[in-house]
Amino acid sequence: MTTSRRAPGAATEPRLRHLVRATDRQRIERVLRSTEMFRADEIEIAGELVDERLAQGDASGYHFLFLERAGETLGYSCYGPIPLTLGSWDLYWIAVDPGRHRHGLGRRLLDETEQHAATAGARKLFVDTSGRAEYLPTRAFYEGCGYQVAARLVDFYAPGDDKVVYVRDLG
Amino acid sequence: MTTSRRAPGAATEPRLRHLVRATDRQRIERVLRSTEMFRADEIEIAGELVDERLAQGDASGYHFLFLERAGETLGYSCYGPIPLTLGSWDLYWIAVDPGRHRHGLGRRLLDETEQHAATAGARKLFVDTSGRAEYLPTRAFYEGCGYQVAARLVDFYAPGDDKVVYVRDLG
Repeated sequence: MTTSRRAPGAATEPRLRHLVRATDRQRIERVLRSTEMFRADEIEIAGELVDERLAQGDASGYHFLFLERAGETLGYSCYGPIPLTLGSWDLYWIAVDPGRHRHGLGRRLLDETEQHAATAGARKLFVDTSGRAEYLPTRAFYEGCGYQVAARLVDFYAPGDDKVVYVRDLG
Repeated sequence: MTTSRRAPGAATEPRLRHLVRATDRQRIERVLRSTEMFRADEIEIAGELVDERLAQGDASGYHFLFLERAGETLGYSCYGPIPLTLGSWDLYWIAVDPGRHRHGLGRRLLDETEQHAATAGARKLFVDTSGRAEYLPTRAFYEGCGYQVAARLVDFYAPGDDKVVYVRDLG
């Protein structure tokens, strides 16, 4: 029998990781399923972006940030420059395991994403979300993080399901 | 010496073509250059969509419509369903050789594009353009064709260069 000793809390401090690995597709899909906010086809597309990143690197246009604790993925973001713009970036995906909510993890992930994007040349970060009632907490999250509604496209996702475009100036 | 006889005007009637060929990349790039409205990096991206179409077919998400006369490409459109939406389509590119303007070719191309998209399930057709002064004729064209401004994203393309999103209901 062996025992291990660690400084209290050292193993439970979430850490950030940028490097993308082949196993991240599964990790991402698990996080997205855990939120119960995404359809299977949406999760499929989110997962494909990992493969594109692995195949093409920065040329894929997709950057990732993973928030992990003790080897477990608590959340992630996927973001990148919008082609044919000078300094407009898109936050394609951000999700945190709901069991980990209310500890500021989503906000920390978004803050770190903004900092990384700004360092890489982003002037503005755009994020699209749904206008449906189920997305009220999502919209409240962005608004609480300093995002403003830039546009609302009626019936964009489907009849009765608007697209709401948020933006934050990173300047 | 031989003579050929044709019905008057028969050879000069523009024709539409959906099938995409490898030579279309060059044809598209020539049309886009002729408009003097696009940067080299924009034309490069427009051309890449031809290759994606040829490699993946409908799965690429890119449909094309070419307007031709006597083997010459007068204009083209590139459009397709927006992923993760039910019935929202995007008009990615539309361009007509400026030497051919004022003959309704742009409008004909847009009408045919809308009809094809609607037949394939489009409820709405979105098109993005610039808010810059140089694009006033472009915006007037869309407005004249029944498009309405759905959003204006300030400084989207670059500082001082807004994105204007137009939409038309095809229902």
